[in-house]
Amino acid sequence: MKNCIITISREYGAGGHSIGKRVAGELGIPFYDRDIVKQTAEASGYPPELVETEGEDISRTDSIIRGIVASSVFYSDSQDVIHDVQQAIILRFAQQGPCVIVGRCADEVIRKAGIDGLHVFIYADDVHRAMRVSEMLGRSNATEIQRLMSRKDASRHAYYNRYTGKKWGDGRNYHLTVDSGALGYDLCTKLIVEAAKALDASADAKPKLKKDK
Amino acid sequence: MKNCIITISREYGAGGHSIGKRVAGELGIPFYDRDIVKQTAEASGYPPELVETEGEDISRTDSIIRGIVASSVFYSDSQDVIHDVQQAIILRFAQQGPCVIVGRCADEVIRKAGIDGLHVFIYADDVHRAMRVSEMLGRSNATEIQRLMSRKDASRHAYYNRYTGKKWGDGRNYHLTVDSGALGYDLCTKLIVEAAKALDASADAKPKLKKDK
Repeated sequence: MKNCIITISREYGAGGHSIGKRVAGELGIPFYDRDIVKQTAEASGYPPELVETEGEDISRTDSIIRGIVASSVFYSDSQDVIHDVQQAIILRFAQQGPCVIVGRCADEVIRKAGIDGLHVFIYADDVHRAMRVSEMLGRSNATEIQRLMSRKDASRHAYYNRYTGKKWGDGRNYHLTVDSGALGYDLCTKLIVEAAKALDASADAKPKLKKDK
Repeated sequence: MKNCIITISREYGAGGHSIGKRVAGELGIPFYDRDIVKQTAEASGYPPELVETEGEDISRTDSIIRGIVASSVFYSDSQDVIHDVQQAIILRFAQQGPCVIVGRCADEVIRKAGIDGLHVFIYADDVHRAMRVSEMLGRSNATEIQRLMSRKDASRHAYYNRYTGKKWGDGRNYHLTVDSGALGYDLCTKLIVEAAKALDASADAKPKLKKDK
């Protein structure tokens, strides 16, 4: 694996983190998810928990962050501070070599930088996602789980749209879109690994991924 | 291959027919595309060329067909005559066993019948599609090719929406969505074959595809 950067966008509860981690493990390349939060927090000076929620969540924390950095003389929009730092961190990871990067508009970040990548979107039906979320959080309140899924997806949607100008989850923004509920995590992992290996092998000879895609 | 019916929806010029044919060849199962037109024409009594264009094209031929079947005492909407017959033909193909069916809302037809399937959508960027269309038609007029792609896609979109109530090309209607321009036909074929084999193997033990999807 010499060339392929894999970005994974995902619906909440669709297993994007787990599948991405497995893909990185099978390919023997770094996996970045929370590391982005950690390094962004260190570089920006914001508390990790704020970067964590703000990183993809516009609706909930914008006002909180705005309050905290009200005194900032460098930026008028605190949301953009963290986004800009996060973007730089993602770009650095991508420039270090093949890896798997989860969420946070990573696909658009490396596209804009002219770096080739395999951009994947992972989704699932509400029932599969709800069971997964219930298992992750140890909760069983259906209404609570439905609200959480709706809020998380709406936030990621808003964040992606704000910083890319594109529609989050629109198949045409990605090279591969898989339904983890119908196909299962094992198969999704296998398909992404297959695609990454094939693209990596062809990258030197004849790039299959367009930088402007 | 005992269980898997593969349906392929595709943008015009994205290679859905070629990729679907390769998938069927590798899996050793029947491939249905023009056969649907042929059998629908025989069963409905309409000329093949009309069924061909009408099969997925609402915008162009609705009026023509309406004129031809104005005397029909069985149906008030000629578009529905051919759709209903086509639907029955697709269902019969699916009930005969594993196969690859291209276009014509086949995914929704077998979903409604409670038959499991691997539903795939194949798309590509305009440049890759235009080059493909130019090669298929032996034309090089960019404006003509752009108009043809727009008209074909708009027609398929309208046809799919009319008969399924869903958005054509929306990743969430399919189990697997692949960008044939970025990934290439060989890789797309490989990924679909991999998915079909895995689902087929797991179908007896524990179905991965939900009938209501």
